[in-house]
Amino acid sequence: MNTISVVAACLTTLSFVPQALQVIKTKDTNGISLGMYSMFVIGVLLWTIHGININDYALIGANGITFLLASIILTYKLKYK
Amino acid sequence: MNTISVVAACLTTLSFVPQALQVIKTKDTNGISLGMYSMFVIGVLLWTIHGININDYALIGANGITFLLASIILTYKLKYK
Repeated sequence: MNTISVVAACLTTLSFVPQALQVIKTKDTNGISLGMYSMFVIGVLLWTIHGININDYALIGANGITFLLASIILTYKLKYK
Repeated sequence: MNTISVVAACLTTLSFVPQALQVIKTKDTNGISLGMYSMFVIGVLLWTIHGININDYALIGANGITFLLASIILTYKLKYK
């Protein structure tokens, strides 16, 4: 992990915070794609499992947090579609 | 790269296809967070640069494609907000 990859990991992981806060606040999920979040949640879960398998804590941390945030967005999309 | 990481990379990268198609088709970007896509586009661009620096073609390919797809979504968000 060098500086670029740490900044990249923080940005891609934390970018889901404003999206999660927006759907929680507005409950407006019309523009959000169910297909995207269905695929994305499974994808980051698999990344987290891969991180556990190879004992890579950066991979586990970044993808674990992204999984939680994307799951919130997916839950709101399913609830308020 | 093992099977889990390949499937994970395909899912997280290709998940942006249905979201990009949806914004192109509907131009409805109300539910989409500008903050998310601003951070995410810069983040995947940095991942792509990191991939170029360490000569990792999987990293370059997955993040390069994600960068293009997320840029389309960000462009529509800025144009039709």
